[in-house]
Amino acid sequence: MPVVTIQMSKGRSLEQKRQLVEEITNTIVNTLGVDPGWVTVLINELERENIAKSGKLLSES
Amino acid sequence: MPVVTIQMSKGRSLEQKRQLVEEITNTIVNTLGVDPGWVTVLINELERENIAKSGKLLSES
Amino acid sequence: MPVVTIQMSKGRSLEQKRQLVEEITNTIVNTLGVDPGWVTVLINELERENIAKSGKLLSES
Amino acid sequence: MPVVTIQMSKGRSLEQKRQLVEEITNTIVNTLGVDPGWVTVLINELERENIAKSGKLLSES
Amino acid sequence: MPVVTIQMSKGRSLEQKRQLVEEITNTIVNTLGVDPGWVTVLINELERENIAKSGKLLSES
Amino acid sequence: MPVVTIQMSKGRSLEQKRQLVEEITNTIVNTLGVDPGWVTVLINELERENIAKSGKLLSES
Repeated sequence: MPVVTIQMSKGRSLEQKRQLVEEITNTIVNTLGVDPGWVTVLINELERENIAKSGKLLSES
Repeated sequence: MPVVTIQMSKGRSLEQKRQLVEEITNTIVNTLGVDPGWVTVLINELERENIAKSGKLLSES
Repeated sequence: MPVVTIQMSKGRSLEQKRQLVEEITNTIVNTLGVDPGWVTVLINELERENIAKSGKLLSES
Repeated sequence: MPVVTIQMSKGRSLEQKRQLVEEITNTIVNTLGVDPGWVTVLINELERENIAKSGKLLSES
Repeated sequence: MPVVTIQMSKGRSLEQKRQLVEEITNTIVNTLGVDPGWVTVLINELERENIAKSGKLLSES
Repeated sequence: MPVVTIQMSKGRSLEQKRQLVEEITNTIVNTLGVDPGWVTVLINELERENIAKSGKLLSES
């Protein structure tokens, strides 16, 4: 613990993922004072046709 | 907010997804009185071999 | 399957919950053609201090 | 109910998935005394580049 | 990794929780061959009025 | 989108939550180049008896 899950649309680069998990882990460690080894970050990539805002699919808005 | 996540087996059409997110967003807006722009709907599609009921994989039952 | 999870702030009435789960189940049944008995809807209520938009806690914005 | 979600890295065999869902369903049934038909198990497979421990992507550690 | 999340209705005993997490962890370790220290099990307890099957709240069916 | 969910044990202060959501939102905005208004952060607090590592409940290890 803690477990952080990021749900975001597909298409980001490996470099962006690297930066996301590193910075979020640092935030968790510095803010909650937990050991880095306890922090799990999961990235759940979704197709834009599987995400909707205001009732519209992102792939169509 | 609110965030609605639908976990379902893969294979539905774009039209079905359109209908799902539109109707569910309307239900949230009409029932909870929130602005449509606040409603996020996420569709998490799973392979049938990654879903089990009564201990059996859907792909094998 | 499908499993629908609604994450929303605490404080809605039982009547609102009743309406949410009934209408969302109907939408799933009518759109995907699955049996009502297969549809699970879960409501995950969160305190407003556990929800943030634009980096601000809802309880403080 | 209950709904059990397993988030794990991609690449496990069908046999491993079969064993996972069968044994976890049995555990739920025997421990909580619920009917097997009520138990849903979902497997969410993630690429190793979408999982991080200690701030490092699994695909790079 | 893996992370297992159990969503179930409130009211189970500590002993039941102990048994659940121990047996599920053993299943993951034996089936996937991962180290026990890598396995996280999370129990998400929901009020029966926040769970619906067939469009009906469990607290009312 | 994106939606970030933090699952962590109960007991952290409001100030810690403030810092968590602010820093994580900034990381998402700076790394992915999305508008802050699109970022939702949800904190799911769990009792220590509902979290297990290595098959042991945190409340007992």
